[in-house]
Amino acid sequence: MRDLPLANVYQLLEPGPVVLLTTARKGHADVMAMSWHMMVEFTPPLVACVVSNADYSFAALRATKECVIAIPALELAPKVVQIGNCSGRDIDKFQRFRLTALPASLVAAPLVAECLANLECKVVDTHLVNKYNLFVLEVVKAWTDPAQKHAKTIHHHGYGNFVVDGETIRLKSRMP
Amino acid sequence: MRDLPLANVYQLLEPGPVVLLTTARKGHADVMAMSWHMMVEFTPPLVACVVSNADYSFAALRATKECVIAIPALELAPKVVQIGNCSGRDIDKFQRFRLTALPASLVAAPLVAECLANLECKVVDTHLVNKYNLFVLEVVKAWTDPAQKHAKTIHHHGYGNFVVDGETIRLKSRMP
Repeated sequence: MRDLPLANVYQLLEPGPVVLLTTARKGHADVMAMSWHMMVEFTPPLVACVVSNADYSFAALRATKECVIAIPALELAPKVVQIGNCSGRDIDKFQRFRLTALPASLVAAPLVAECLANLECKVVDTHLVNKYNLFVLEVVKAWTDPAQKHAKTIHHHGYGNFVVDGETIRLKSRMP
Repeated sequence: MRDLPLANVYQLLEPGPVVLLTTARKGHADVMAMSWHMMVEFTPPLVACVVSNADYSFAALRATKECVIAIPALELAPKVVQIGNCSGRDIDKFQRFRLTALPASLVAAPLVAECLANLECKVVDTHLVNKYNLFVLEVVKAWTDPAQKHAKTIHHHGYGNFVVDGETIRLKSRMP
């Protein structure tokens, strides 16, 4: 995987792809599926996300204040759904779904080798965690897989219905 | 436009479309383009969004605590970009871009008739406004245009590059 400049991170998350979120606590890595995330700042890239306190990952994220946001392409869609339909309380999802956990550089949570991009994140604000399960993260390191440069991402519409990236249109704009 | 059950709102915003955000203050309606938004809760539907304090809409949103999130389809993409590249400080964007402002039912901000859905919102949390320009909104009323049921939305990747909705895939899932 190749370095991605932090200033370009927003171009990956702003379009709203389903992502995977990994955590690691006491040597146990877990991964969940997530669609409730948004950019908050360009540089350093800040990201807000909602991780339900009913999710097994919630406690790990709150305790370790670290995670990785990994962006899966279309080919991983069946695994993304399966990951979203079971809990790390019961199984080792990396093993069950044959995902390759790679060591990150700045956080304990693992990268997901099969994903097109991986964003190492630290929790920087927890003011809205108790009320809304809303975390603010800073992306401290970003990776992309050059082999997946033209991969299509998927966008969740509920109950396993996903819209896949279609054509790209380019309009003249000054806005980042 | 037709009523949309509030419980279905997340299916519109979760996939990450570019949206328009309208405000009204002292009789002056404005509209901006926005991609930094996410769902926070299913019902009542809560939405977080970032509106830069450099945007003209910021002051109106903070003062009136009301807005409408309108979702444009592909056909409006050129107008969305133009809306994002100018300021309500200088012009009346509804007039300039020939958008039809319709009265909302529960907020002063107008609906945008040309959009496929309109979500009337009230600001319910401002704890992170000063630090991150992050507002938490509650959607209090939702409308869809039945004639645009199969419309494609657009997803911003930066500088006027948009990915258009492609095919839909359906995978078996218990998750909403």
